[in-house]
Amino acid sequence: MNATAGQGWSLHPDRALPADGGIREVARTIFDATRTLPIVSMHGHVDAGLLADDAPYADPASLLVTPDHYLVRMLVSQANAPGPVRDAGVRSAADLGAGDGGSTERDPRTIWRRFCAGWPALRATPTRYWLEHVLVEVFEAPVRPSPDTADALYDHIADRLAQPDYRPRALFERFGIELLATTDAAASSLADHRRLAADGWGTRVVPTFRPDPLFEIARPGWAGELAALSDAAGVDAHDYDGFLDALRARRRSFIAAGARATDHGHLLADTTPLAAEDVRRLFDAARRGSARPEDARAFTAHMLFQMAEMSSEDGLVMQLHPGVLRDYDGARAERLGHDLGYDIPVATEFTRSLRPLLEAFGHHPRFRLIVFTVDEDVYSRELAPLAGVYPALRLGAPWWFLDTPDAMRRFREAVVDTAGFYNTSGFVDDTRAFCSIPARHDLSRRIDAGFLGRLVAEHRLDLDEAVATAVDLAQTLPRQSYPAPDGAAA
Amino acid sequence: MNATAGQGWSLHPDRALPADGGIREVARTIFDATRTLPIVSMHGHVDAGLLADDAPYADPASLLVTPDHYLVRMLVSQANAPGPVRDAGVRSAADLGAGDGGSTERDPRTIWRRFCAGWPALRATPTRYWLEHVLVEVFEAPVRPSPDTADALYDHIADRLAQPDYRPRALFERFGIELLATTDAAASSLADHRRLAADGWGTRVVPTFRPDPLFEIARPGWAGELAALSDAAGVDAHDYDGFLDALRARRRSFIAAGARATDHGHLLADTTPLAAEDVRRLFDAARRGSARPEDARAFTAHMLFQMAEMSSEDGLVMQLHPGVLRDYDGARAERLGHDLGYDIPVATEFTRSLRPLLEAFGHHPRFRLIVFTVDEDVYSRELAPLAGVYPALRLGAPWWFLDTPDAMRRFREAVVDTAGFYNTSGFVDDTRAFCSIPARHDLSRRIDAGFLGRLVAEHRLDLDEAVATAVDLAQTLPRQSYPAPDGAAA
Amino acid sequence: MNATAGQGWSLHPDRALPADGGIREVARTIFDATRTLPIVSMHGHVDAGLLADDAPYADPASLLVTPDHYLVRMLVSQANAPGPVRDAGVRSAADLGAGDGGSTERDPRTIWRRFCAGWPALRATPTRYWLEHVLVEVFEAPVRPSPDTADALYDHIADRLAQPDYRPRALFERFGIELLATTDAAASSLADHRRLAADGWGTRVVPTFRPDPLFEIARPGWAGELAALSDAAGVDAHDYDGFLDALRARRRSFIAAGARATDHGHLLADTTPLAAEDVRRLFDAARRGSARPEDARAFTAHMLFQMAEMSSEDGLVMQLHPGVLRDYDGARAERLGHDLGYDIPVATEFTRSLRPLLEAFGHHPRFRLIVFTVDEDVYSRELAPLAGVYPALRLGAPWWFLDTPDAMRRFREAVVDTAGFYNTSGFVDDTRAFCSIPARHDLSRRIDAGFLGRLVAEHRLDLDEAVATAVDLAQTLPRQSYPAPDGAAA
Repeated sequence: MNATAGQGWSLHPDRALPADGGIREVARTIFDATRTLPIVSMHGHVDAGLLADDAPYADPASLLVTPDHYLVRMLVSQANAPGPVRDAGVRSAADLGAGDGGSTERDPRTIWRRFCAGWPALRATPTRYWLEHVLVEVFEAPVRPSPDTADALYDHIADRLAQPDYRPRALFERFGIELLATTDAAASSLADHRRLAADGWGTRVVPTFRPDPLFEIARPGWAGELAALSDAAGVDAHDYDGFLDALRARRRSFIAAGARATDHGHLLADTTPLAAEDVRRLFDAARRGSARPEDARAFTAHMLFQMAEMSSEDGLVMQLHPGVLRDYDGARAERLGHDLGYDIPVATEFTRSLRPLLEAFGHHPRFRLIVFTVDEDVYSRELAPLAGVYPALRLGAPWWFLDTPDAMRRFREAVVDTAGFYNTSGFVDDTRAFCSIPARHDLSRRIDAGFLGRLVAEHRLDLDEAVATAVDLAQTLPRQSYPAPDGAAA
Repeated sequence: MNATAGQGWSLHPDRALPADGGIREVARTIFDATRTLPIVSMHGHVDAGLLADDAPYADPASLLVTPDHYLVRMLVSQANAPGPVRDAGVRSAADLGAGDGGSTERDPRTIWRRFCAGWPALRATPTRYWLEHVLVEVFEAPVRPSPDTADALYDHIADRLAQPDYRPRALFERFGIELLATTDAAASSLADHRRLAADGWGTRVVPTFRPDPLFEIARPGWAGELAALSDAAGVDAHDYDGFLDALRARRRSFIAAGARATDHGHLLADTTPLAAEDVRRLFDAARRGSARPEDARAFTAHMLFQMAEMSSEDGLVMQLHPGVLRDYDGARAERLGHDLGYDIPVATEFTRSLRPLLEAFGHHPRFRLIVFTVDEDVYSRELAPLAGVYPALRLGAPWWFLDTPDAMRRFREAVVDTAGFYNTSGFVDDTRAFCSIPARHDLSRRIDAGFLGRLVAEHRLDLDEAVATAVDLAQTLPRQSYPAPDGAAA
Repeated sequence: MNATAGQGWSLHPDRALPADGGIREVARTIFDATRTLPIVSMHGHVDAGLLADDAPYADPASLLVTPDHYLVRMLVSQANAPGPVRDAGVRSAADLGAGDGGSTERDPRTIWRRFCAGWPALRATPTRYWLEHVLVEVFEAPVRPSPDTADALYDHIADRLAQPDYRPRALFERFGIELLATTDAAASSLADHRRLAADGWGTRVVPTFRPDPLFEIARPGWAGELAALSDAAGVDAHDYDGFLDALRARRRSFIAAGARATDHGHLLADTTPLAAEDVRRLFDAARRGSARPEDARAFTAHMLFQMAEMSSEDGLVMQLHPGVLRDYDGARAERLGHDLGYDIPVATEFTRSLRPLLEAFGHHPRFRLIVFTVDEDVYSRELAPLAGVYPALRLGAPWWFLDTPDAMRRFREAVVDTAGFYNTSGFVDDTRAFCSIPARHDLSRRIDAGFLGRLVAEHRLDLDEAVATAVDLAQTLPRQSYPAPDGAAA
C-alpha cells in the first residue's frame, strides 16, 4: 500500500507481485488476463441467510472485527505484552466483542478503536492484506487504521453501510461473483437457500453437504445429530441401514438445492472401510453410548469410504480437509464457542490413509476427490505424487493458515512439478467474511501470476502458455472441479 | 524455450537460471564452467542390453512415450477431466501403449498423437523440461508438440532413428558420458556387461548390485530369489551362512564386472542388526513360509547392517533410498506391472534408523554410505546434521519426485548450511530414459549454478570459489563418491 | 567477502542482503536502522568465568578452532575423502585438538594450519560466514585462510590476543553488548556471576537456570544431581516435596543473581502433569534406581509443567527446546564428551505436547514461554498457529542448525503469516563462541532486513513500518521477551 497523510489511501497496483523487475513485468501481463474474471467461490462459510435477508450490515465492528476470529486471535495473542494492543485495553476476546459473559464489550466504536490501535500487530499477515483491500476497494477508506484515524474511519464505513450499494446482494454483484457455495449441516432445512431460489438467486448461491458431527460417534451430541438427521430426511436414522438411507436422502435434497459438493473435516484422513457386521456393531455400541475412541476413529474412516461410494453414484464432489485438532483449549471452547481460533494443526498422514478409497474409486469416471491440508510437508511427499497419478484426485488450494502470499507460492513450488497445474482445483476462499472474498481471490491470482511469471522469466514456460494457465487456474479449474451432478436443479 | 511458428524451435541458453539479472549473469559464468564437462552417471536404470545390442530404436512412441511412466501417469491423471488429454482419447495407460491386455494401443503414431495433444498437461513439470531438451537437442525437432505438429514431429524423429548417429552407442559418445552405472539384480548373469566388456565398453558401463528382493523374506517370490541367488553364486543360499556367502560371492562378481556400488530401496531406513541366533531363527521361519511382517522388517534392517559391513570389507559404496510405498494400487500393479507410477512416498525416519549402522561404520575409512530421500522434511532436520559429522556419509542428490528445478534448489538451500557442499554426492539421474540423461545433468548444473550465483551475488562466496565448487559438484564429487573398489577390474 | 591478494580483506557491506536490486536498496535502508543497535543476547553458552577472569586468550587455535565443535565436525566429516582436509592431516577431532587421549594434537599452530587448509570445506556454511566476520571485523585479518596464509594469520591474531583491547571485557564493550545471559546448572554456585557483580558487571551478565539433568530420573548421574541440588539449595531434595522446594530455592537464588529465564532441553516437548501420588511413586522408584524409560519420560513432562507453574509465580521466562537426540554416537560421546557435534534432531510434536501447559498457563498474565525447534516442519503447522493465539507463547529464533541465512529467511516466511512479527522473541545467538556474537546478530539483522525489504518491495508493508519492525525485532522484542522478574536484583 501507499499511505501518505492527506492524499488518501490507495493500494499499489503491483502489490504481491514479485519484486524482481524482470519477473514483475511478465507477472503483470499474466495478472491482467485474470484480474477481472468472475469469482467462482466453491468452498466457503458465508451464511446463506446474509444473502437471503439482504439486510444492511449493522456497524463496522460487527462487520469487520468481532466475527473475524483470525483478527481477534492475533490481537489477543498480544494482550500480555507491552505495546499498542495492550495499551488499547485488549485483555481477551471479550474486549473485542467476542464470546459472551457480562464483561463482553458491546460498544462497536470502542471495539473499532481497539482494532485500529492494534493495527501494527497485523503487519505482514494475510488478515492485514485482506483488510486493506476491504477498506480501500470495498469501502473507499481514506486513511489507514491508527488511533488517530479510528473515529473518522468508523464514521466513513458506517456511512457506507447505510447505503443500498453496500447491502450483501449489491456487493455480490459488485464483487463479480459467479457462484458461491456455502457450507451446511446435513440436517439443514436449506430454508435460506429456498428463499434465495425464490428470488432467482438459486443458481448463484448453492449449499454444500457437511455431515461431520454424524460421523463422530463418541461425541456427546451424536444422539441429537441422529435425531435431527432423521427429522430432516424423513427416514429413521437410528440403525445403520437407515443412517445410510437418510444420508442418501439428504444428499439428494442438497443436489436438488444446487449443491456441487460434500465437505469433510475430521482429525484423520483414514478411509478404511469396515466389514458390514463390524460397522453395525460399532453403530449399535454408539447408540448405547459405549463407543470407545478407537471405535469412533474406525467409524469415521468407514464413513469417509461410504461418502466416496455415494459420490461415485450421485456425482457430488467429495472434499476432505483433515489434520486440525479442534477446540484445542477446552476452557476457551466452552466460553467462546467452537472453532474460534483455538483449532491447531497436527502432522497428518495421507498416503496410507487414502489408499483404500483411492484403490476403490481413484479411477472411477464419476468420482472427484479434492484434498486440502494444513500440513505443508505432505505437498511434495504425498499429495502431489497421488494427484499426479489418480484421475479422481485433485489438490485443493492452500487452505486456512496456508492461505497467505508466501504459503500459496510454496504450494505451487511444491506440487506443480509432480502434479502439474491441472491436478489442482483452483482457489477457494474458505471464508465467512463475505467482504473479503474479492481480496482473497485477487491475492491468489497475483501469487499465481508471480509464480507463472517466474517460470516464463526462467524460460521454463512460454508467455502464451502462462496466460492460458492463469486463466485456467482462476476460472476453468474451479468450474471444472466442481461440476453440477447429473440430477442437479439448474 | 522459444517457439515461433516457422522459425524452428530452440532452447533458451539461460533456461532454468535465476531470473534476477544480477544473479543470472554470475550463474551464467558459473554454468559455463560445467556445461561441457563429461557426464558421470553413477545411479540409473538404463538397460545394459540397450548398449550391448546397439540396435536402432524402433519408433518415437516406444522410445519417448510408452516406457516413460512419469509421462504416462501425468496424462492418465487427466483422463477424467474435460480437456485435451481426454479429447485425444486417453482413458488409461493402455491408450498410451502401457500395460497389456486386448485393448492396449499398439499403433505408435496414434500414441504419439495422443502425447502431442496432451502436451499442455505437462506445463512446468520436469518431464516437459527434459522432453524439450531431448526433442530439440537430441533430435533437432523443428516445432513443439501439438495436435497440428504431431505427424511432422513423428516423421522427423523416425527419420533420425533410422540413422546410425542415433543408435545408443553413438548417442552415448555424443552425450559425453564418462561412466554409466546400471542397476542389476543380485542374481543377474551380467551377460550384457560381459558383451559390453568384450566390445571394449566394460569401463564405460558398469553394473550396480541391487539385492532388494532377497531381503524381503515375507514376499511370495522370496524362495525363487534364493534359488536364483544360489545358482548365480554357485553357493547354496538356503541357510543363513550360505546366504551371506552367496551375497559375498555375487558382490565379488559385480566388482569384477566393474561395479562401484550397491543399491537398497526398502520401505524403512532401519539398520538394526539382530543377534546371530535371532537372524537364523527368522531365516528358517521364512524358509518355512512363516515369517511375520515384523520379522520381515527386522530381517531387512539386519541385512542393511550386513551390507554396510560387507561394504567396509570389499569397498562397494552403499546406496540407500527408503521411504516409498511400492505398488500402492494393488489392481494396477497386477495389471501394469511393478513400479509403474503407483509408488508413493511416506514420511521416513533416518536419525534413529541409521544409528546402529553409523555407530558401527560411520567413521570406517573404507566405508561410504550415500542416502537418498523423497521426504524433504529430513533434509535439514536429519540428513544434513548426520552428513555434517560422519565421514562415511554423503547425501545423495534430490531423487525421483524431487529431481526438479525447484526441488533441487530447495535441496541445496536445506542441506548446504549444515552439511556443506562436500558431503553431497553429486547429481545422479536415476533414469531408464537414456536419451534424457544429458537433459537431466544439464538441468542439475543450471540449478547448482543458480544457487552458487546467488551466494556470490549475496557476497557469501567469491566467484572463483563458486566456479570451483560447481566443477566439484558436477565432476569431482560423483567420481570421488563412487570410487572403484580395490579389487575392481580396470 | 572480497579477497584480492595484496589489498587486504574486507567484508562486503551488502553481504547477506538479497541480491535483487530493488529489494537490496530497501533492505539496506532497513538494515542501517539496526546495524549499530546494542546486542541483547538472552540465550547463550558463554562461560561466565571468561568474563569474570578477563584473562587474555591463549592462542588462535584454542580460541577459534578446537572449541568450535561445528567447525571441528565439518572438517572431520571430510576426513575420509581425498581433498584439502585429509591432505592437511585431519583424521579425527583429535587432530584439531578436540577430545583427549595420547594422540590429541597439542600444537596450536599445527591445528591452525589444518583449519586454514580445510577452509574450502566450509563454503556456504554459517560457520564460515561467522568466522569471516570474526577474522576481519574483530581481528582485522589481512587475508583469508589458506595453506599459504596460515602462519601469517596465526601470527597476526596471536599478536592481537596479546593486547589489552582483545581481552574479553574489552571485546564485550567493543561488541556493544547490552546484556548477556549465560546458561548455568541448577546447582551452580553462581560464583563467577558473583565475581562479575563485585566488579559492577552483574547487570550486564546474568545467569539462566537450566535444570535438565534433574528431570532425567533414569540417567546414571541422577542421584549425584540430587545431592548437588540439596547442597546448593540448602534443602534436602531427596523426596519429591523437598525436590520442588529446592528447585524453588535455586530459582530464587538465580533471580537474585539477575536471571531472567529458565531453559529446558529434553527429547520431547510433552508437558503432561502427573497426579500427586503418581509423581511421588515415580520419584521414589527413581531413588531406588528402578525408574523405567517410560517413567522417566512421564517425570520429565510433569516437571516441565511444574516449571511453567513456578514461572507463573516467580516470573522467570521459560525456554523450551526439545527435539534433539543427544550423544547420538555412544563411542564418540564417551571419548569426546557430551554435546560435541553428535547431537542429531528428530521429528518433534508440539501441538498435543504443549496442550496441558498451554491450557493451564497459556493466558496467564505473568507467564512467558519461548519455544525453539530444529524441526522446521512445525513452524507453519504447529508453532505459528499456537503463538498466534496464546498470549503467553512466543517463538524463539531459528536455533542451532537453523541459525543460518537461508533457514532464518525460511523461519520468517513460515511463521510471520500466522504468528505475526510480535509473537517472536527476537534473535538469540545460542553460542559459546564469544567472539562470534556480533557476527551472529549482524547476520540476523541482515536477514530480517532482507525479509522486510521484500515485503516493502512487494507493497505488502510500508517502509516506515518495516524500519520500525526491524528495530523491534533487534531490540524491543528481546528486551520485552525476557523481562526482569519482579524480585530481581537490579
